[in-house]
Amino acid sequence: ELRDALAASFGGGALAGLKVVVSAGPTYEDIDPVRFIGNRSSGRMGFAVAEAAAAAGAAVTLVAGPVSLPTPAGVARRVDVRSAAQMQAAVLEAARDAQIYVGAAAVGDYRPQQVAERKLKKQAGADLVLQLAENPDILATLAAQPAPPFLVGFAAETHEVAAYAQDKLRRKKLDMIAANEVGGGRGFEAGDNALTLYWPDGSLELARTSKAALARRLVEQVAARYRAVRG
Amino acid sequence: ELRDALAASFGGGALAGLKVVVSAGPTYEDIDPVRFIGNRSSGRMGFAVAEAAAAAGAAVTLVAGPVSLPTPAGVARRVDVRSAAQMQAAVLEAARDAQIYVGAAAVGDYRPQQVAERKLKKQAGADLVLQLAENPDILATLAAQPAPPFLVGFAAETHEVAAYAQDKLRRKKLDMIAANEVGGGRGFEAGDNALTLYWPDGSLELARTSKAALARRLVEQVAARYRAVRG
Repeated sequence: ELRDALAASFGGGALAGLKVVVSAGPTYEDIDPVRFIGNRSSGRMGFAVAEAAAAAGAAVTLVAGPVSLPTPAGVARRVDVRSAAQMQAAVLEAARDAQIYVGAAAVGDYRPQQVAERKLKKQAGADLVLQLAENPDILATLAAQPAPPFLVGFAAETHEVAAYAQDKLRRKKLDMIAANEVGGGRGFEAGDNALTLYWPDGSLELARTSKAALARRLVEQVAARYRAVRG
Repeated sequence: ELRDALAASFGGGALAGLKVVVSAGPTYEDIDPVRFIGNRSSGRMGFAVAEAAAAAGAAVTLVAGPVSLPTPAGVARRVDVRSAAQMQAAVLEAARDAQIYVGAAAVGDYRPQQVAERKLKKQAGADLVLQLAENPDILATLAAQPAPPFLVGFAAETHEVAAYAQDKLRRKKLDMIAANEVGGGRGFEAGDNALTLYWPDGSLELARTSKAALARRLVEQVAARYRAVRG
């Protein structure tokens, strides 16, 4: 880590001279002023990636959903958001002049069609139906731009992780995807994690370790693939 | 506070010799292994009430929803739960030999009718409908018992706070209700708070102050009302 810090401070890190945007954490979609739909992302993996990218010399913008984590050392800018729509707006703005985007946030796929201004009252004996609308897909929106940044996605799945990750890589036109299995104490709320990286013509398993160590290995691979593809 | 601690340690606190159960925090209702419906309760008010009750000499059981707060000083037992059903089971068990129950948790009114075992996949272009079922009402369940404890509820409302709180006091057969207005930085996620207490033949406004100070004043009033009605 001292070597990384020294290398970064002298402009010699693997991501020196590059602008990197990292999204992290969950999004919360409000139902009314009190209730929301959330997800179990702790934000720790994304925050670790932001710290590792900064240590590798990148100018990092971290777009964070609702988490209670301190801004990692070296991160140049942090934008706090709550909903998927807010996250998309912040990422698109930050990504305009970035070379790499790492989408580590667990963006909610759906939001309530209407957000009630007043707290919804329980109707005794009656069930409730919540109409949900699809959220914007941040990675797909970036991929559809004329000159998208190098795009790294995450796939957190409970089943058939490899098949789903490779499909998502192709479908969303990503440059790399980091896949992990969640549930049973793995992934989202756990302190350590394992990842498998896929890119269009290769893959690499990163064995279970702390999220900080895993993030450094991921950033090394992102830098290597970025240099190979974008020069 | 020193006086409270001394009084409590010599058995002279306002709640000395009493068993008190406090519920605190939100409940999270899982939609699938990743998504859930939550609410904005931070748990701080309930944790402050548990600490104040312990300082007043009570043997306190704290039933806590998903929060990241340390157990307050003096609290005898803490039970961590996630869903409303788990909270109800833990509260009913703890309340069996308790004299006072303070329901400070923001219990989710609704849960998804089914919890999906696998992460739900986004259906491109299709909206989603979430069927919700009503959760058990913990206070009403306690009130319906043959010899219920002294029951204190909370009402966090965005509008018409007084009317709603007084209706809830009568409808749920509570001994006291603590009402506050939420939204616009007040209540749920704020550091301080104000409360109005209602009981069947009176009310009292507790002015805006820290949640710790407010909790001590609330506990004083609970002790006074308990002694008046049950003492």
